[in-house]
Amino acid sequence: MNKVKILDCTLRDGGYYTNWDFDKSLLDVYFKSVEKLPIDVVEVGYRSLPQTHYLGEFFYCPQFILNDIRKSLPSKKIAVMLNERDNAPENVASLLGHLKESIDIVRMAVDPVRFDSGLKLAEEIKKLGFEVGFNLMYMSKVMKSPDVFAKFPSMNGLVDYFSLVDSYGGVYPEEVRSAVEKCKEVLSMPVGFHGHNNVEMALINSLTAIEAGADMIDATISGMGRGAGNLKTELLLTVLNAQKKLSIDYNALSDVVSAFAAYQKKYEWGTNLPYMVSGANSLPQKDVMEWVGKNRYSISTIVNALNNQKENVMDN
Amino acid sequence: MNKVKILDCTLRDGGYYTNWDFDKSLLDVYFKSVEKLPIDVVEVGYRSLPQTHYLGEFFYCPQFILNDIRKSLPSKKIAVMLNERDNAPENVASLLGHLKESIDIVRMAVDPVRFDSGLKLAEEIKKLGFEVGFNLMYMSKVMKSPDVFAKFPSMNGLVDYFSLVDSYGGVYPEEVRSAVEKCKEVLSMPVGFHGHNNVEMALINSLTAIEAGADMIDATISGMGRGAGNLKTELLLTVLNAQKKLSIDYNALSDVVSAFAAYQKKYEWGTNLPYMVSGANSLPQKDVMEWVGKNRYSISTIVNALNNQKENVMDN
Repeated sequence: MNKVKILDCTLRDGGYYTNWDFDKSLLDVYFKSVEKLPIDVVEVGYRSLPQTHYLGEFFYCPQFILNDIRKSLPSKKIAVMLNERDNAPENVASLLGHLKESIDIVRMAVDPVRFDSGLKLAEEIKKLGFEVGFNLMYMSKVMKSPDVFAKFPSMNGLVDYFSLVDSYGGVYPEEVRSAVEKCKEVLSMPVGFHGHNNVEMALINSLTAIEAGADMIDATISGMGRGAGNLKTELLLTVLNAQKKLSIDYNALSDVVSAFAAYQKKYEWGTNLPYMVSGANSLPQKDVMEWVGKNRYSISTIVNALNNQKENVMDN
Repeated sequence: MNKVKILDCTLRDGGYYTNWDFDKSLLDVYFKSVEKLPIDVVEVGYRSLPQTHYLGEFFYCPQFILNDIRKSLPSKKIAVMLNERDNAPENVASLLGHLKESIDIVRMAVDPVRFDSGLKLAEEIKKLGFEVGFNLMYMSKVMKSPDVFAKFPSMNGLVDYFSLVDSYGGVYPEEVRSAVEKCKEVLSMPVGFHGHNNVEMALINSLTAIEAGADMIDATISGMGRGAGNLKTELLLTVLNAQKKLSIDYNALSDVVSAFAAYQKKYEWGTNLPYMVSGANSLPQKDVMEWVGKNRYSISTIVNALNNQKENVMDN
């Protein structure tokens, strides 16, 4: 068994590019390959109440889909994510109550300013018998905020997996090391790291997190994920394999990487100059993703807009 | 002025993908932008005797091209590279003797097993009045070889720029730190680092080299370069700008990055699963580049071939 657990969240985080719709043939390759790879947890999508605008099935993860996935991935833990901001504790029972056999872990994406609401939501999820994951966004801000960090011990005994999220894709390895070490001192549950690749630090940040004691690393096939994308699952596995820390079925890995390569050409995730600027300066990449996606703005227009944003941030 | 010098070798290293031919319109944007960016040295190609097979003009760099470049880049030092293996000391005068006004630096790519021949070639280049650069390949092997390292001081007083080359794209930041520190102890000239991006460590390795005292970093626009490619110039500049170590004309940077983006779609340099496997296991990427380029082999075939190579390496 791996000492460090690997969580693949390709469908959940990659869905930002496809509106959470994926081709059936891609899904077949994905599930078949992932089942053969040393991945411990597969986060397959969001679980959500009905929205006013169209979003694909992996944004909702209805029970019949989750049950199909369970059959395809008999050796894996299955996770779904909730956006804490969009899900009130009183809705949790109707959202998740009937899914006890279909999923193992419910992770929440939590903005640090809503830490207390995150705890309340975690309590309701826990009551239903799920393992609870707590993904805390904006780690670069969090670790500089003594108020938020002081609340960390209140997760002990309630939260089963805690992860630091490098939302801007701009943290450096030494910041990751320090943050993971601080978390390990006060938290009793496994501590994870979710990196973004704006400045191509997702791998070194994740390896540094492991060195510092992290128990779980998030990654996605080909790095498919919001904005500049995530740590590439194939890169993490290849490097850990070269370090003799795990074995890989390279046929399975090649199959799934090839399948996503075609998708990458269509959706073009990955870093680029605007994402580098947003990452290096800790600016939100949500705006950049919208500007880049629209193909209406030149790189130069976007980069200059980001630089204005940076100046304003520094003026305030 | 920058404390750390930046050398852009897009045309020299990118030529491996285009046979050292570049569109005139791309070159115009490249020179116009680079002149406005905080780049100190521009390595524009190889200088070579006639070859039996076709290679484009930036493999030969005839004087009329070098003189045009000099006019386009009045504020930059101009460098060309020689492959040490292919250039005997007795040919240096005919190869370079007439170019004193056209170029500033002649860098040699030297295999560590040919270190002594490298010194002889350096002497001939130096006699002609050029600054001499010594790029030592296979740094992961070199730093484990006391025999080669013992020869380093013989470069003092002869070589003007020494650079460690991560030829396999597989060294880790701590290896870079240690290697640069060891070089700085015994060498009197500026020490540089030339990274490859197989496992997406080119940036962190370069930043670590700078921390350890490196004086020069090599990079290419969009990472265009042999195999998995190089450190991206735009990434290095953006990160150093965010660290307030230099200013950037982001319009110029956007222009040149956009121009190369179209080329990248055509030639598809950058890392992928086969390059990750070769980098993580320190296997030569020359073979991989040939296999990937032929489009005749599936990723799975290449990866399995690389794994067989790895097993053999370990068996020996």
